[in-house]
Amino acid sequence: MIDLSNEFAIGIDIGGTNTKWGIVNHRGDITEKGELKTDGYPTIESFVDKLYETLSPIIQRHATIGKIKGIGIGAPNGNFYTGTIEYAPNLHWKGIIPLTKLVTARFSLPSLLTNDANAAAVGEMMYGAARGMKDFIMITLGTGVGSGIVANGSVIYGHDGFAGELGHTIIRPGGRKHWSTDLVGSLEAYCSATGIVLSAMELLEQSTADSLLRQFAPETIDSKKVYECAVQGDAIAKEAYRFTGQILGEALANFVMFSSPESIILFGGVIKAGDLIMQPTKEHMEKNVLPIFRNKIKLIFSELKEADAAILGASALVWEMRD
Amino acid sequence: MIDLSNEFAIGIDIGGTNTKWGIVNHRGDITEKGELKTDGYPTIESFVDKLYETLSPIIQRHATIGKIKGIGIGAPNGNFYTGTIEYAPNLHWKGIIPLTKLVTARFSLPSLLTNDANAAAVGEMMYGAARGMKDFIMITLGTGVGSGIVANGSVIYGHDGFAGELGHTIIRPGGRKHWSTDLVGSLEAYCSATGIVLSAMELLEQSTADSLLRQFAPETIDSKKVYECAVQGDAIAKEAYRFTGQILGEALANFVMFSSPESIILFGGVIKAGDLIMQPTKEHMEKNVLPIFRNKIKLIFSELKEADAAILGASALVWEMRD
Repeated sequence: MIDLSNEFAIGIDIGGTNTKWGIVNHRGDITEKGELKTDGYPTIESFVDKLYETLSPIIQRHATIGKIKGIGIGAPNGNFYTGTIEYAPNLHWKGIIPLTKLVTARFSLPSLLTNDANAAAVGEMMYGAARGMKDFIMITLGTGVGSGIVANGSVIYGHDGFAGELGHTIIRPGGRKHWSTDLVGSLEAYCSATGIVLSAMELLEQSTADSLLRQFAPETIDSKKVYECAVQGDAIAKEAYRFTGQILGEALANFVMFSSPESIILFGGVIKAGDLIMQPTKEHMEKNVLPIFRNKIKLIFSELKEADAAILGASALVWEMRD
Repeated sequence: MIDLSNEFAIGIDIGGTNTKWGIVNHRGDITEKGELKTDGYPTIESFVDKLYETLSPIIQRHATIGKIKGIGIGAPNGNFYTGTIEYAPNLHWKGIIPLTKLVTARFSLPSLLTNDANAAAVGEMMYGAARGMKDFIMITLGTGVGSGIVANGSVIYGHDGFAGELGHTIIRPGGRKHWSTDLVGSLEAYCSATGIVLSAMELLEQSTADSLLRQFAPETIDSKKVYECAVQGDAIAKEAYRFTGQILGEALANFVMFSSPESIILFGGVIKAGDLIMQPTKEHMEKNVLPIFRNKIKLIFSELKEADAAILGASALVWEMRD
């Protein structure tokens, strides 16, 4: 056994507004972390310069007690094969950004990039709920629906680096049109935070039943309000969650028949509703799989602390790196 | 380079009625082949005995010019990990059959088993349309709809050996109930030969329009008759194919967003209808994927001769074997 206790990985999570970084060891302990504004730097070069300026003294300090093995980066539309961010709609750097090339040149460290959901999957495999699993699917349910698929112990990146877009699979043909992709009936149109709100609004319009939600101006209703009303027993808010769970369960059934994972790991704000969504999710997943898959797939929650999950996921890419 | 030209693999395809075998070299040339009745042997042991009796002189003959490397077997519900056939509904041997254990003991050769669609995918990768591809999906469209998924150059077997059941994914929630699985709205319920016939019958019932199909007693209509009427320009028969293509295209869009394959390879009787089905398939696949996948995925036909494809696929498992 090699002693890995003094090896460190840098994890960087690039979001539309903020970029978080952390120094992480093999056990997933974060020794230092921080943030900078993503949108404060007009060019990618100035952003990488600032990152280097910030991290350089920390890297030097860690070099006295161990070794920094590399830099892992999670970013929207991050391509694992090319190390480029390609046409990310919510970043202000446009076109194709050669991120790992710039980072490796500036830091003189190897770097790897993937999208945030794939990074989350690697994070769970390395430090979290998927330790020891070779076949699982990670689903992130927040403002969007993301996914990372692991089969035979490796993330499925596909032939072009863009595999694992399960949030955009069509689960209700002819159904709700997605507000930004224009796809009709996609999972994200129903099971994201926005999707839950739209389902609640539709239910409010379709009935004249009393609802706690009617006290709010429609444009102020968000998923938090729907959740709070559901917890208070409001029938319409509860039905919005039940319906969301049904759609999610049907989608998960399809994913199970694709890659037969040992488990499906769920992460993100939407699943905080607990049984309100999980009970129908489980019910409709089991109902829609072949008998050979029934009651075999574990539906579990992420074990990474939400605030650190993105950094941990990004850092975990480094441990997957071939030497 | 090692000279592999005198290495051979035995490919065995076990179907409900007939079992086909062949001796195959690295290029996919079949040097000898034959058949026996699957259902002529009450026990699996007597079946394996008969296989050995048949193949033994051929194996000895090949041993004088080269080396038999192993035996690959394709069978319904064949499990790659365990080498067992598990509860195959269309075989008369019931329960869990320890096939590779029996075959290896009898032949003193290593043996591998998987289901027929996975074997077909490995066959395409080794000898056919997927040579050189690391990420592709094989879809077999015949009496059933089967699939084999290859990612990172390996078949996805999942945690239990049963991955790749894409024919049973739900593509029309609340839609047609499958006649044997009871799943509602699955791909196979629409895009198998039986599914096409059901679609044609529904169209005949829903309208009073003239149709060549009305000359037949309903219970005698099969997919061949629907095809022949469509070729003659019959509107209802053509619509049955168009609708089938639409459903298939929508399903393929979901598969693309899962594993982002370089190509999707189609095989089987249903696709002989050519553009009648392929044009709507392509149209609806492209319409339902994210822009990053659009016009990138090749939709191609198997390059293996249909009569030999199952033997070739089974034999190809042997070349994938670790030494």
